[in-house]
Amino acid sequence: MPIGKERLDKQMEFIREVDGLKGISRRSFILDGSRNENDAEHSWHLALMAFLLSEHSNDPDIDLPKVIRMLLIHDIVEIDAGDTFAYDEEGNKTKVERERECANRIFNILPQDQARELLSLWEEFEARETKEARFAASLDRLQPIMLNHGTGGRTWREHGVLADQVRARNEHIREGSETIWKHTCGIIEDSVRKGYLEE
Amino acid sequence: MPIGKERLDKQMEFIREVDGLKGISRRSFILDGSRNENDAEHSWHLALMAFLLSEHSNDPDIDLPKVIRMLLIHDIVEIDAGDTFAYDEEGNKTKVERERECANRIFNILPQDQARELLSLWEEFEARETKEARFAASLDRLQPIMLNHGTGGRTWREHGVLADQVRARNEHIREGSETIWKHTCGIIEDSVRKGYLEE
Repeated sequence: MPIGKERLDKQMEFIREVDGLKGISRRSFILDGSRNENDAEHSWHLALMAFLLSEHSNDPDIDLPKVIRMLLIHDIVEIDAGDTFAYDEEGNKTKVERERECANRIFNILPQDQARELLSLWEEFEARETKEARFAASLDRLQPIMLNHGTGGRTWREHGVLADQVRARNEHIREGSETIWKHTCGIIEDSVRKGYLEE
Repeated sequence: MPIGKERLDKQMEFIREVDGLKGISRRSFILDGSRNENDAEHSWHLALMAFLLSEHSNDPDIDLPKVIRMLLIHDIVEIDAGDTFAYDEEGNKTKVERERECANRIFNILPQDQARELLSLWEEFEARETKEARFAASLDRLQPIMLNHGTGGRTWREHGVLADQVRARNEHIREGSETIWKHTCGIIEDSVRKGYLEE
Protein backbone atom coordinates (compact mmCIF):
# COMPACT_ATOMS: atom_id res chain seq x y z
CA MET A 1 0.00 0.00 0.00
CA PRO A 2 1.51 3.40 -0.89
CA ILE A 3 2.40 5.49 2.18
CA GLY A 4 0.13 8.35 1.09
CA LYS A 5 -2.91 6.08 0.92
CA GLU A 6 -2.18 4.49 4.28
CA ARG A 7 -1.88 7.94 5.92
CA LEU A 8 -5.12 9.15 4.36
CA ASP A 9 -6.94 5.97 5.42
CA LYS A 10 -5.89 6.48 9.04
CA GLN A 11 -6.83 10.15 8.92
CA MET A 12 -10.26 9.31 7.49
CA GLU A 13 -10.81 6.65 10.15
CA PHE A 14 -10.14 9.29 12.81
CA ILE A 15 -12.42 11.77 11.04
CA ARG A 16 -15.25 9.20 11.08
CA GLU A 17 -14.54 8.32 14.72
CA VAL A 18 -14.82 11.93 15.92
CA ASP A 19 -18.27 12.19 14.33
CA GLY A 20 -19.23 10.81 17.77
CA LEU A 21 -18.63 14.26 19.28
CA LYS A 22 -21.94 15.34 17.71
CA GLY A 23 -23.65 12.92 20.10
CA ILE A 24 -22.03 14.17 23.32
CA SER A 25 -24.59 16.32 25.07
CA ARG A 26 -23.60 19.25 27.29
CA ARG A 27 -25.56 20.84 30.16
CA SER A 28 -25.92 24.12 28.26
CA PHE A 29 -28.93 24.79 26.07
CA ILE A 30 -28.65 26.38 22.63
CA LEU A 31 -30.04 29.93 22.61
CA ASP A 32 -33.46 29.07 21.17
CA GLY A 33 -33.93 26.81 24.22
CA SER A 34 -35.06 23.84 22.10
CA ARG A 35 -32.41 21.34 23.24
CA ASN A 36 -29.02 20.82 24.87
CA GLU A 37 -25.93 21.82 22.99
CA ASN A 38 -23.51 19.11 21.87
CA ASP A 39 -19.71 19.12 21.99
CA ALA A 40 -19.18 19.45 18.21
CA GLU A 41 -21.31 22.62 17.98
CA HIS A 42 -19.68 23.98 21.12
CA SER A 43 -16.22 23.42 19.59
CA TRP A 44 -17.24 25.24 16.41
CA HIS A 45 -18.63 28.16 18.42
CA LEU A 46 -15.40 28.48 20.45
CA ALA A 47 -13.13 28.32 17.40
CA LEU A 48 -15.14 31.10 15.78
CA MET A 49 -15.03 33.13 19.01
CA ALA A 50 -11.24 32.79 19.11
CA PHE A 51 -11.05 34.12 15.56
CA LEU A 52 -13.21 37.15 16.43
CA LEU A 53 -12.04 37.91 19.98
CA SER A 54 -8.25 37.32 19.89
CA GLU A 55 -7.63 41.09 20.10
CA HIS A 56 -8.90 40.92 23.71
CA SER A 57 -6.28 38.39 24.80
CA ASN A 58 -3.98 39.64 27.59
CA ASP A 59 -1.05 38.79 25.35
CA PRO A 60 -1.07 40.59 21.98
CA ASP A 61 1.38 38.04 20.51
CA ILE A 62 -0.92 35.07 20.89
CA ASP A 63 -0.64 32.34 18.22
CA LEU A 64 -4.26 32.44 17.01
CA PRO A 65 -4.12 29.46 14.61
CA LYS A 66 -2.85 27.37 17.52
CA VAL A 67 -5.70 28.55 19.79
CA ILE A 68 -8.17 27.56 17.07
CA ARG A 69 -6.61 24.12 16.53
CA MET A 70 -6.67 23.60 20.30
CA LEU A 71 -10.35 24.49 20.54
CA LEU A 72 -11.27 22.26 17.58
CA ILE A 73 -9.85 19.22 19.40
CA HIS A 74 -10.20 20.12 23.12
CA ASP A 75 -13.37 18.08 23.76
CA ILE A 76 -12.66 15.03 21.57
CA VAL A 77 -11.65 13.08 24.70
CA GLU A 78 -15.29 13.33 25.83
CA ILE A 79 -16.33 10.85 23.12
CA ASP A 80 -15.51 8.05 25.60
CA ALA A 81 -15.38 10.04 28.85
CA GLY A 82 -18.61 12.03 28.42
CA ASP A 83 -19.07 15.69 29.30
CA THR A 84 -18.32 16.48 32.96
CA PHE A 85 -20.42 19.38 34.24
CA ALA A 86 -18.20 22.19 35.55
CA TYR A 87 -20.03 22.17 38.91
CA ASP A 88 -20.06 18.35 39.38
CA GLU A 89 -17.46 17.85 42.15
CA GLU A 90 -17.63 14.04 42.13
CA GLY A 91 -17.35 13.78 38.35
CA ASN A 92 -14.41 16.17 38.29
CA LYS A 93 -12.40 13.86 40.59
CA THR A 94 -12.21 11.09 37.94
CA LYS A 95 -12.33 13.38 34.87
CA VAL A 96 -8.56 13.52 34.25
CA GLU A 97 -8.13 9.75 34.27
CA ARG A 98 -11.20 9.05 32.09
CA GLU A 99 -10.18 11.66 29.55
CA ARG A 100 -6.56 10.49 29.44
CA GLU A 101 -7.69 6.98 28.53
CA CYS A 102 -9.83 8.28 25.70
CA ALA A 103 -7.01 10.52 24.45
CA ASN A 104 -4.68 7.53 24.24
CA ARG A 105 -7.20 5.48 22.32
CA ILE A 106 -8.59 8.05 19.94
CA PHE A 107 -5.61 10.20 18.96
CA ASN A 108 -3.64 7.02 18.20
CA ILE A 109 -5.99 6.22 15.33
CA LEU A 110 -4.06 8.93 13.44
CA PRO A 111 -0.61 8.57 11.83
CA GLN A 112 1.98 8.76 14.63
CA ASP A 113 3.16 12.33 13.98
CA GLN A 114 -0.39 13.67 14.05
CA ALA A 115 -1.33 11.55 17.06
CA ARG A 116 1.56 13.16 18.94
CA GLU A 117 0.60 16.63 17.74
CA LEU A 118 -3.03 16.34 18.87
CA LEU A 119 -2.12 14.74 22.19
CA SER A 120 0.35 17.52 22.86
CA LEU A 121 -2.21 20.22 21.93
CA TRP A 122 -4.77 18.64 24.24
CA GLU A 123 -2.25 18.39 27.11
CA GLU A 124 -1.30 22.02 26.58
CA PHE A 125 -4.98 23.02 26.74
CA GLU A 126 -5.54 21.03 29.93
CA ALA A 127 -2.40 22.36 31.68
CA ARG A 128 -3.46 26.00 31.07
CA GLU A 129 0.10 27.27 31.34
CA THR A 130 0.74 28.83 27.93
CA LYS A 131 -0.90 32.05 26.74
CA GLU A 132 -2.74 30.13 24.02
CA ALA A 133 -4.17 27.60 26.49
CA ARG A 134 -5.19 30.37 28.88
CA PHE A 135 -7.02 32.29 26.19
CA ALA A 136 -8.68 29.13 24.88
CA ALA A 137 -9.84 28.31 28.43
CA SER A 138 -11.30 31.85 28.80
CA LEU A 139 -13.52 31.28 25.79
CA ASP A 140 -14.45 27.76 26.94
CA ARG A 141 -15.81 29.35 30.14
CA LEU A 142 -17.40 32.48 28.67
CA GLN A 143 -19.47 30.54 26.12
CA PRO A 144 -21.65 28.45 28.48
CA ILE A 145 -22.18 31.51 30.73
CA MET A 146 -23.40 33.43 27.69
CA LEU A 147 -25.75 30.54 26.74
CA ASN A 148 -27.04 30.28 30.30
CA HIS A 149 -27.72 34.01 30.48
CA GLY A 150 -29.47 33.86 27.10
CA THR A 151 -31.76 31.01 28.22
CA GLY A 152 -32.86 32.54 31.53
CA GLY A 153 -30.24 30.71 33.63
CA ARG A 154 -31.82 27.36 32.84
CA THR A 155 -28.80 25.14 33.56
CA TRP A 156 -27.89 27.05 36.74
CA ARG A 157 -31.44 26.76 38.05
CA GLU A 158 -31.77 23.07 37.12
CA HIS A 159 -28.59 22.25 39.05
CA GLY A 160 -28.91 24.79 41.88
CA VAL A 161 -25.70 26.60 40.98
CA LEU A 162 -25.10 29.87 42.89
CA ALA A 163 -23.47 33.13 41.74
CA ASP A 164 -20.38 32.67 43.93
CA GLN A 165 -19.79 29.21 42.46
CA VAL A 166 -19.93 30.70 38.98
CA ARG A 167 -17.47 33.45 39.98
CA ALA A 168 -15.04 31.04 41.71
CA ARG A 169 -15.15 28.38 39.00
CA ASN A 170 -14.60 30.85 36.17
CA GLU A 171 -12.27 33.48 37.60
CA HIS A 172 -9.36 31.98 35.66
CA ILE A 173 -10.90 33.63 32.60
CA ARG A 174 -8.86 36.68 33.66
CA GLU A 175 -5.60 34.76 33.11
CA GLY A 176 -6.46 34.70 29.41
CA SER A 177 -8.27 38.00 29.09
CA GLU A 178 -9.01 40.69 31.67
CA THR A 179 -11.43 42.25 29.17
CA ILE A 180 -13.41 39.05 28.75
CA TRP A 181 -13.43 38.48 32.51
CA LYS A 182 -14.89 41.97 33.02
CA HIS A 183 -17.51 41.23 30.38
CA THR A 184 -18.29 37.87 32.05
CA CYS A 185 -18.73 39.58 35.43
CA GLY A 186 -21.24 41.89 33.75
CA ILE A 187 -23.21 38.87 32.47
CA ILE A 188 -23.15 37.28 35.95
CA GLU A 189 -24.38 40.51 37.60
CA ASP A 190 -27.15 40.87 35.03
CA SER A 191 -28.15 37.23 35.60
CA VAL A 192 -28.43 37.85 39.34
CA ARG A 193 -30.42 41.05 38.74
CA LYS A 194 -32.86 39.22 36.48
CA GLY A 195 -33.26 36.27 38.84
CA TYR A 196 -31.53 33.74 36.54
CA LEU A 197 -28.85 33.08 39.15
CA GLU A 198 -29.10 33.21 42.95
CA GLU A 199 -26.56 34.92 45.21
CA MET B 1 -18.81 54.17 25.93
CA PRO B 2 -15.15 53.15 25.57
CA ILE B 3 -14.26 51.89 22.08
CA GLY B 4 -13.08 48.50 23.43
CA LYS B 5 -16.41 47.85 25.12
CA GLU B 6 -18.41 48.86 22.06
CA ARG B 7 -16.36 46.51 19.86
CA LEU B 8 -16.75 43.60 22.28
CA ASP B 9 -20.51 44.23 22.55
CA LYS B 10 -20.89 44.03 18.77
CA GLN B 11 -18.72 40.93 18.59
CA MET B 12 -20.77 39.25 21.32
CA GLU B 13 -24.01 40.15 19.57
CA PHE B 14 -22.71 38.42 16.43
CA ILE B 15 -21.55 35.41 18.48
CA ARG B 16 -25.07 35.06 19.93
CA GLU B 17 -26.66 35.54 16.51
CA VAL B 18 -24.65 32.73 14.89
CA ASP B 19 -25.86 30.32 17.58
CA GLY B 20 -28.70 29.94 15.07
CA LEU B 21 -26.42 27.83 12.85
CA LYS B 22 -26.96 24.97 15.33
CA GLY B 23 -30.59 24.93 14.23
CA ILE B 24 -29.97 24.73 10.46
CA SER B 25 -30.52 21.12 9.46
CA ARG B 26 -28.65 19.52 6.57
CA ARG B 27 -29.69 16.54 4.39
CA SER B 28 -26.79 14.43 5.70
CA PHE B 29 -27.22 12.17 8.71
CA ILE B 30 -24.61 11.89 11.46
CA LEU B 31 -22.83 8.54 11.38
CA ASP B 32 -24.89 6.87 14.13
CA GLY B 33 -27.94 7.52 11.92
CA SER B 34 -29.96 9.03 14.78
CA ARG B 35 -30.68 12.41 13.19
CA ASN B 36 -29.72 14.94 10.53
CA GLU B 37 -26.50 16.86 10.90
CA ASN B 38 -26.66 20.61 11.49
CA ASP B 39 -24.52 23.34 9.95
CA ALA B 40 -22.56 24.15 13.13
CA GLU B 41 -21.40 20.54 13.60
CA HIS B 42 -20.64 20.29 9.89
CA SER B 43 -18.48 23.43 10.08
CA TRP B 44 -16.55 22.02 13.05
CA HIS B 45 -15.98 18.74 11.24
CA LEU B 46 -14.66 20.52 8.13
CA ALA B 47 -12.32 22.81 10.09
CA LEU B 48 -10.85 19.77 11.84
CA MET B 49 -10.53 17.94 8.49
CA ALA B 50 -8.63 20.91 7.05
CA PHE B 51 -6.22 20.77 9.99
CA LEU B 52 -5.59 17.04 9.46
CA LEU B 53 -5.68 16.77 5.66
CA SER B 54 -3.89 19.92 4.43
CA GLU B 55 -0.88 17.82 3.36
CA HIS B 56 -3.08 16.40 0.58
CA SER B 57 -3.83 19.79 -0.96
CA ASN B 58 -2.64 20.16 -4.56
CA ASP B 59 -0.73 23.23 -3.47
CA PRO B 60 1.82 22.60 -0.70
CA ASP B 61 1.93 26.33 0.16
CA ILE B 62 -1.69 26.59 1.16
CA ASP B 63 -2.52 29.07 3.97
CA LEU B 64 -4.09 26.57 6.40
CA PRO B 65 -5.27 29.07 9.05
CA LYS B 66 -7.15 30.89 6.30
CA VAL B 67 -8.78 27.65 5.08
CA ILE B 68 -9.90 26.97 8.65
CA ARG B 69 -11.31 30.49 9.16
CA MET B 70 -13.12 30.14 5.83
CA LEU B 71 -14.69 26.83 6.85
CA LEU B 72 -15.73 28.17 10.26
CA ILE B 73 -17.80 30.91 8.60
CA HIS B 74 -18.74 29.39 5.20
CA ASP B 75 -22.29 28.35 6.15
CA ILE B 76 -23.27 31.27 8.40
CA VAL B 77 -25.28 32.75 5.51
CA GLU B 78 -27.62 29.75 5.80
CA ILE B 79 -29.01 31.10 9.08
CA ASP B 80 -31.50 33.14 7.00
CA ALA B 81 -31.20 31.34 3.64
CA GLY B 82 -31.44 27.75 4.92
CA ASP B 83 -29.39 24.83 3.64
CA THR B 84 -29.72 24.21 -0.10
CA PHE B 85 -29.31 20.52 -0.98
CA ALA B 86 -26.47 20.04 -3.49
CA TYR B 87 -28.80 18.15 -5.87
CA ASP B 88 -31.75 20.60 -5.61
CA GLU B 89 -31.68 22.34 -9.01
CA GLU B 90 -34.55 24.74 -8.26
CA GLY B 91 -33.13 25.77 -4.89
CA ASN B 92 -29.70 26.34 -6.35
CA LYS B 93 -31.09 28.94 -8.79
CA THR B 94 -31.98 31.36 -5.98
CA LYS B 95 -29.25 30.30 -3.53
CA VAL B 96 -26.75 33.06 -4.40
CA GLU B 97 -29.26 35.86 -3.92
CA ARG B 98 -30.72 34.47 -0.69
CA GLU B 99 -27.27 33.93 0.81
CA ARG B 100 -26.00 37.35 -0.26
CA GLU B 101 -28.87 39.03 1.61
CA CYS B 102 -28.10 37.08 4.76
CA ALA B 103 -24.37 37.86 4.46
CA ASN B 104 -25.12 41.58 4.29
CA ARG B 105 -27.33 41.44 7.34
CA ILE B 106 -25.39 39.14 9.57
CA PHE B 107 -21.74 40.05 8.98
CA ASN B 108 -22.63 43.73 9.48
CA ILE B 109 -23.50 43.04 13.12
CA LEU B 110 -19.71 42.97 13.64
CA PRO B 111 -17.38 45.99 13.88
CA GLN B 112 -16.80 47.26 10.33
CA ASP B 113 -13.27 45.85 9.85
CA GLN B 114 -14.37 42.36 10.90
CA ALA B 115 -17.58 42.59 8.87
CA ARG B 116 -15.46 43.30 5.79
CA GLU B 117 -13.03 40.49 6.65
CA LEU B 118 -15.76 37.84 7.03
CA LEU B 119 -17.65 39.01 3.94
CA SER B 120 -14.45 38.83 1.93
CA LEU B 121 -13.61 35.34 3.27
CA TRP B 122 -17.11 34.13 2.39
CA GLU B 123 -16.91 35.64 -1.11
CA GLU B 124 -13.53 34.00 -1.63
CA PHE B 125 -14.97 30.64 -0.58
CA GLU B 126 -17.94 31.01 -2.92
CA ALA B 127 -15.82 32.09 -5.91
CA ARG B 128 -13.55 29.01 -5.58
CA GLU B 129 -10.69 30.72 -7.39
CA THR B 130 -7.90 30.73 -4.80
CA LYS B 131 -6.07 27.59 -3.66
CA GLU B 132 -7.51 28.02 -0.15
CA ALA B 133 -11.09 28.22 -1.43
CA ARG B 134 -10.57 25.23 -3.70
CA PHE B 135 -9.20 23.09 -0.90
CA ALA B 136 -11.98 24.22 1.46
CA ALA B 137 -14.55 23.29 -1.20
CA SER B 138 -12.97 19.82 -1.60
CA LEU B 139 -13.55 19.10 2.08
CA ASP B 140 -17.06 20.56 1.99
CA ARG B 141 -17.88 17.96 -0.70
CA LEU B 142 -15.97 14.99 0.70
CA GLN B 143 -17.62 15.22 4.13
CA PRO B 144 -21.28 14.60 3.14
CA ILE B 145 -20.20 11.80 0.77
CA MET B 146 -18.38 10.16 3.67
CA LEU B 147 -21.48 10.54 5.90
CA ASN B 148 -23.73 9.15 3.19
CA HIS B 149 -21.49 6.15 2.65
CA GLY B 150 -21.34 5.57 6.42
CA THR B 151 -25.14 5.61 6.74
CA GLY B 152 -25.89 3.23 3.87
CA GLY B 153 -26.52 5.97 1.30
CA ARG B 154 -29.56 7.19 3.18
CA THR B 155 -29.71 10.74 1.77
CA TRP B 156 -28.98 9.57 -1.79
CA ARG B 157 -31.73 6.98 -1.61
CA GLU B 158 -34.25 9.34 0.00
CA HIS B 159 -33.72 11.85 -2.80
CA GLY B 160 -33.12 9.44 -5.70
CA VAL B 161 -29.62 10.73 -6.40
CA LEU B 162 -27.61 8.66 -8.93
CA ALA B 163 -23.88 7.86 -9.05
CA ASP B 164 -23.26 10.05 -12.11
CA GLN B 165 -24.89 13.02 -10.41
CA VAL B 166 -22.58 12.53 -7.43
CA ARG B 167 -19.55 12.33 -9.74
CA ALA B 168 -20.54 15.40 -11.80
CA ARG B 169 -21.52 17.56 -8.85
CA ASN B 170 -18.35 16.79 -6.89
CA GLU B 171 -15.64 16.49 -9.52
CA HIS B 172 -14.32 19.95 -8.60
CA ILE B 173 -12.86 18.26 -5.50
CA ARG B 174 -9.86 17.52 -7.75
CA GLU B 175 -9.18 21.28 -8.14
CA GLY B 176 -8.35 21.33 -4.43
CA SER B 177 -6.86 17.87 -4.06
CA GLU B 178 -6.29 15.10 -6.60
CA THR B 179 -5.62 12.74 -3.67
CA ILE B 180 -8.93 13.51 -2.00
CA TRP B 181 -10.76 13.20 -5.33
CA LYS B 182 -9.25 9.75 -5.85
CA HIS B 183 -10.32 8.78 -2.33
CA THR B 184 -13.83 10.17 -2.98
CA CYS B 185 -14.12 8.13 -6.19
CA GLY B 186 -13.26 5.06 -4.12
CA ILE B 187 -16.10 5.86 -1.71
CA ILE B 188 -18.52 6.35 -4.62
CA GLU B 189 -17.50 3.03 -6.22
CA ASP B 190 -17.87 1.22 -2.89
CA SER B 191 -21.30 2.81 -2.41
CA VAL B 192 -22.42 1.55 -5.84
CA ARG B 193 -21.03 -1.91 -5.09
CA LYS B 194 -22.90 -2.08 -1.80
CA GLY B 195 -26.16 -0.81 -3.29
CA TYR B 196 -26.14 2.52 -1.41
CA LEU B 197 -26.06 4.45 -4.67
CA GLU B 198 -27.52 3.53 -8.06
CA GLU B 199 -25.68 3.83 -11.37
